[in-house]
Amino acid sequence: MTPAGFYYSSNAFSAPEHGGTHLDAPVHFAKDHLSVDQVPLSNLTGNAVVIDVSEKALKNRDYLISVNDIENWEKKNGKIPDSSIVLFKTGLGKFYPNAKNYFGTDVKGVDAIPLLHFPGIDPGAAEWLVSQRKIKALGLDTPSIDYGQSKDFKTHQVVLAKNIPAFENVANLDKLPTKGSYIVALPMKIEHGSGGPLRIIVWIRN
Amino acid sequence: MTPAGFYYSSNAFSAPEHGGTHLDAPVHFAKDHLSVDQVPLSNLTGNAVVIDVSEKALKNRDYLISVNDIENWEKKNGKIPDSSIVLFKTGLGKFYPNAKNYFGTDVKGVDAIPLLHFPGIDPGAAEWLVSQRKIKALGLDTPSIDYGQSKDFKTHQVVLAKNIPAFENVANLDKLPTKGSYIVALPMKIEHGSGGPLRIIVWIRN
Repeated sequence: MTPAGFYYSSNAFSAPEHGGTHLDAPVHFAKDHLSVDQVPLSNLTGNAVVIDVSEKALKNRDYLISVNDIENWEKKNGKIPDSSIVLFKTGLGKFYPNAKNYFGTDVKGVDAIPLLHFPGIDPGAAEWLVSQRKIKALGLDTPSIDYGQSKDFKTHQVVLAKNIPAFENVANLDKLPTKGSYIVALPMKIEHGSGGPLRIIVWIRN
Repeated sequence: MTPAGFYYSSNAFSAPEHGGTHLDAPVHFAKDHLSVDQVPLSNLTGNAVVIDVSEKALKNRDYLISVNDIENWEKKNGKIPDSSIVLFKTGLGKFYPNAKNYFGTDVKGVDAIPLLHFPGIDPGAAEWLVSQRKIKALGLDTPSIDYGQSKDFKTHQVVLAKNIPAFENVANLDKLPTKGSYIVALPMKIEHGSGGPLRIIVWIRN
């Protein structure tokens, strides 16, 4: 496989416990599900599709990615192929690591929680995606697949319950084509871990 | 690229700071050289050759992999191709994580240092390899590219000074062919890090 382009798609860790690109393992929200060291390579490698919702998400920090967004993408690009890794581009990635612009607040620690404002995936859209399409993994360029104001982390529950891993704080999504990239996403192999730092690389087809 | 085989080649981290498969970045022993987040993907991806020295290394815990070992390999398999990732199989990998069998002692902490007995790469062999051949990276199935009894870590100095990263505690080398495997080795992207946990996957050609 000769790469036409070859990118780092991970943000670096300067504060490993709270920043950087990482993977949420199914066990994080779904008891008895896979821990990070158990997620199969088949979920971590594959063709990606990039669904660009940045036009809406950059105007609304509480934007929830909807079924409608996915359906509109499919009208233009065809049905999401089976075994895709689905990446949502909110556009917020360009603000990383500026806390105020990326998280919506530069307050640190637990006091920040009610002040978090960043887009995420609507639980209904997540449910649709994991039941109506066959996807390997899900990712986006925000700190969480649930939006900043989520109280119940329903999107995490829906996605992880299907043993689908989630990639958060994904970098350089603006360098990826809508289709035609091949991803290798390798999390740190932490025994029994509920998640871990994630290194993603991308081959882009000629 | 369709994998004929597809393996995890990383040991899991139960104690991140001292165990698991990891990468030593050039800056670890060579000032002003690359830190782990700076090692180019071109050094972390590529075709591997496996040089099996297990017959000698399993009989001698202080075995030093020699120029002669490499030359013997080349007599059978041809010159190490340019841009190879060179992996030495000492056979010790099968003992991981049993400390007594893998490190040569089950004493913990600094008291263990004089008691470490495991094979490594002779500094002369390292010098030969990085000057006479064009290699992307170097790895093996022991805790260090320097043998357990090393006092000066000369092999580290020689290899890292050339901006060649080292992979240590590599797993599952017994599953790799002598030639014909393609490696993706992604370390945790720690800003300014002298090394990091490493996840290695391998495609084996049909």
